[in-house]
Amino acid sequence: MHAQTIRSAVFIASMAGLYLSAAMLAPAAVDFYFGNPDWQVFTVSSFSVGAVCLAAAASTRGANAPFSRRLGFLLVNLLWIVLSVTGAIPFYLASLGLDMADALFESVSAVTTTGATVISGLDSAPPGLLLWRSLLQWIGGIGIVALGLLVLPYLKVGGFTVFKMESSDTSEKPFERFAVFVRAFFAIYIGLTLTCAILYKVLGMSDFDAINHAMTTMATGGFSTHDASFGAFQSAGLIWTATIFMAIAGLPFSVLILFAVRGRLDALRDPQIYAYAGLVVVLTLTIALSLRLSQGESFGPALTHAAFNVVSIITTTGFASTDYTLWGPLAVVILFMATFLGGCSGSTAGGIKAYRLVIIYGSIRAGLMRLIYPHSVRPVRYGSVAVEPDMQRTVFLFVCAYVGIWALGSVALAATGLDVETAISGSITALANVGPGIGPVIGPAGNFASLGDPAKIILVFLMLLGRLEILAVLVLLLPAFWRE
Amino acid sequence: MHAQTIRSAVFIASMAGLYLSAAMLAPAAVDFYFGNPDWQVFTVSSFSVGAVCLAAAASTRGANAPFSRRLGFLLVNLLWIVLSVTGAIPFYLASLGLDMADALFESVSAVTTTGATVISGLDSAPPGLLLWRSLLQWIGGIGIVALGLLVLPYLKVGGFTVFKMESSDTSEKPFERFAVFVRAFFAIYIGLTLTCAILYKVLGMSDFDAINHAMTTMATGGFSTHDASFGAFQSAGLIWTATIFMAIAGLPFSVLILFAVRGRLDALRDPQIYAYAGLVVVLTLTIALSLRLSQGESFGPALTHAAFNVVSIITTTGFASTDYTLWGPLAVVILFMATFLGGCSGSTAGGIKAYRLVIIYGSIRAGLMRLIYPHSVRPVRYGSVAVEPDMQRTVFLFVCAYVGIWALGSVALAATGLDVETAISGSITALANVGPGIGPVIGPAGNFASLGDPAKIILVFLMLLGRLEILAVLVLLLPAFWRE
Repeated sequence: MHAQTIRSAVFIASMAGLYLSAAMLAPAAVDFYFGNPDWQVFTVSSFSVGAVCLAAAASTRGANAPFSRRLGFLLVNLLWIVLSVTGAIPFYLASLGLDMADALFESVSAVTTTGATVISGLDSAPPGLLLWRSLLQWIGGIGIVALGLLVLPYLKVGGFTVFKMESSDTSEKPFERFAVFVRAFFAIYIGLTLTCAILYKVLGMSDFDAINHAMTTMATGGFSTHDASFGAFQSAGLIWTATIFMAIAGLPFSVLILFAVRGRLDALRDPQIYAYAGLVVVLTLTIALSLRLSQGESFGPALTHAAFNVVSIITTTGFASTDYTLWGPLAVVILFMATFLGGCSGSTAGGIKAYRLVIIYGSIRAGLMRLIYPHSVRPVRYGSVAVEPDMQRTVFLFVCAYVGIWALGSVALAATGLDVETAISGSITALANVGPGIGPVIGPAGNFASLGDPAKIILVFLMLLGRLEILAVLVLLLPAFWRE
Repeated sequence: MHAQTIRSAVFIASMAGLYLSAAMLAPAAVDFYFGNPDWQVFTVSSFSVGAVCLAAAASTRGANAPFSRRLGFLLVNLLWIVLSVTGAIPFYLASLGLDMADALFESVSAVTTTGATVISGLDSAPPGLLLWRSLLQWIGGIGIVALGLLVLPYLKVGGFTVFKMESSDTSEKPFERFAVFVRAFFAIYIGLTLTCAILYKVLGMSDFDAINHAMTTMATGGFSTHDASFGAFQSAGLIWTATIFMAIAGLPFSVLILFAVRGRLDALRDPQIYAYAGLVVVLTLTIALSLRLSQGESFGPALTHAAFNVVSIITTTGFASTDYTLWGPLAVVILFMATFLGGCSGSTAGGIKAYRLVIIYGSIRAGLMRLIYPHSVRPVRYGSVAVEPDMQRTVFLFVCAYVGIWALGSVALAATGLDVETAISGSITALANVGPGIGPVIGPAGNFASLGDPAKIILVFLMLLGRLEILAVLVLLLPAFWRE
């Protein structure tokens, strides 16, 4: 590892910290407006973090290392660490009095767009703090889309969209395309957030609730300004609006970008979108029917709540409209298993993601065919494109690592004294960046406040591992990574 | 699919059924000796099944199809179906009065060496029936070792031992080696079973208990003649004897065969054996320490019970020496996760198996290295042998299919109304052919009697899928398999 590489990574991460410190002025302004003394915390945090980041940036600028894989891996890890630590500072200093582990947990849960919270009493929490949680998630959402569209595919970890674009869309020069993409992405992300906020407001939320929930909806984060999460809004209109915007946020942003830039909708013809939509429809109908049949719920409300909570979990948002753990074992097992799945690549969603499920399904079919015809060569197809063996291998590595880390995480959480349900579901809900687990402690009706510090630290690691697609973190554990 | 292929498969399966019908005379003799009227059931079953199988064999004999992959896959499926159905007949007809679903469940649980039971009141059950359960498991154990050593590797599904032997051990002609292997295997399997029975007897079991438990120990089956399973024998000597014989049964039989035939022990230097032994030691010590620290148990008994139950689950035997679900969440989560693992390839154990874990670990390491050095070619090694890409792919396909079927099985079981714990653990304990799950219903202190028929049928499918390494069953679902 060249010192220059480390310097470059520190420089870029410091710049990101600088932007984040500027973002702290928004909650400062809100708290000042509402007369909450926390405005000083945000202002002081903003200036001191800004000063540190500026100093770090100044001392590492110039002499940029050429972009290499090592720089890429170092950078994504460093970026999320800087975002997490910087984001934690106001939580630690603010009037709510979170301790260090809690502040770090809340910040990591935000920037990884997980949405698990250690704060109870959200309804009466200071507005600046609530806004900071939502804003961190929204910024984390930008970060992960950028990562998934631009960085991870280059590093050959996760990210499938660019692969598709490269094969069907070579008309433009890369840098030109890059700039267009970035502008279009920001326009879409901000546009959708504003549209969502306006709809929330029109359908009955307060201004403040509308803005906060719109940001955490589009980030598939799931932080709410109420302890009851989306259960605080028992309006079918609001619930369906949220369902639709979460579902959009779980789509590859490349689809939305191509639509915005070229007016083309043909990118919707993507196998992962079929898989994602199919899963949502099948799981929603199954749960709605089971609610209708076994719980005697009438079909309309059953469908509304089933759709909301299925979409919330598959897109790894983690809002809950009600305590679905009371819906009987079928719904609970489906929602537990859905926690593993995730939305589309190139979205703000976490989890295994639909494109990997498509490739695994194709690989299993091809593998079974090869058992009958051992000498036939049948490529695994993703739509009309052949999936390279290297891509298949990376998908399999990811899934095995994912399941293995879920198991190890569960054991580690149980070792801290958590009960079986909390340990097993906590590990996967953190790793998949969903939010709620099952059971009375961390289920949709609970929160993570009562967990011990060791459990919170384990969950912090799991959230970061999941957000960075596991392999991008594990690679740092190889001694070879650090050699010159 | 040629008609001749089907005829050949039916012929071989009928011969297996014929042998099994002959085996029914053993419980017939025992029941006759003890004056239990079930002797008639076993005698009549034996002759009628024998007659049917003889007729089927006679009408399909001659004109053998050349051995092909299609014949292989058809045969393994047909063999286990014939064993299951034939085995179920005495359960259905005997005085205990099991209904059809229960009889089939018990028989499939036996021939797949799972060991989950729907019979409560084992302590007072007729001796012939108890012997039939144990004998079916013992025969199922022979079947699965033969499958794993001789058939599955040829079909490129599971089975790793022959791969190893072929590369290091080409001195003999295949058929000569085959005959030597088969003879050595029977000698070792019978020899170890007798040794185990004698030790059980010497250490305090009755003759009948000793014979039954020795058979189900060596088959890593786990059927007991007592409702309390091995908890009926609170003797450290018996518990450790069982631990050691289960651990031996989880080793590849090729190791024991090479030792018996050539006096060589170097086959022990096998990465999967290191992994298997390492897992057993680490999990045992972790649980023993947690029992010592959190439950205040003294270290000796804690170690005894931890070792017994860890080995019982990793080897997929499923005996329980005590209700380990009372050991606190750490032990329960570890033992739940251990349910996925399994012993070595070429043993009677089920599950993912240690050789796959070794290959996955190697692949992840190699995959991470490739992320840093994308153009380097680093083969995945299994000990000193390079693992071919095809073998790696099959391992990954298996693990993905395994996890996917666990999830689908859990949802299906929950749909029948089982609680979350029972559904999630029941699915994996059946698929891995272990036996007990977690929770009050199917945990080590419960049994499967109270489950509804739909749940039992789902579990029957899962046990058979797991026993035939999943892919060997799934391949029959391809339309291409049945085409001429």
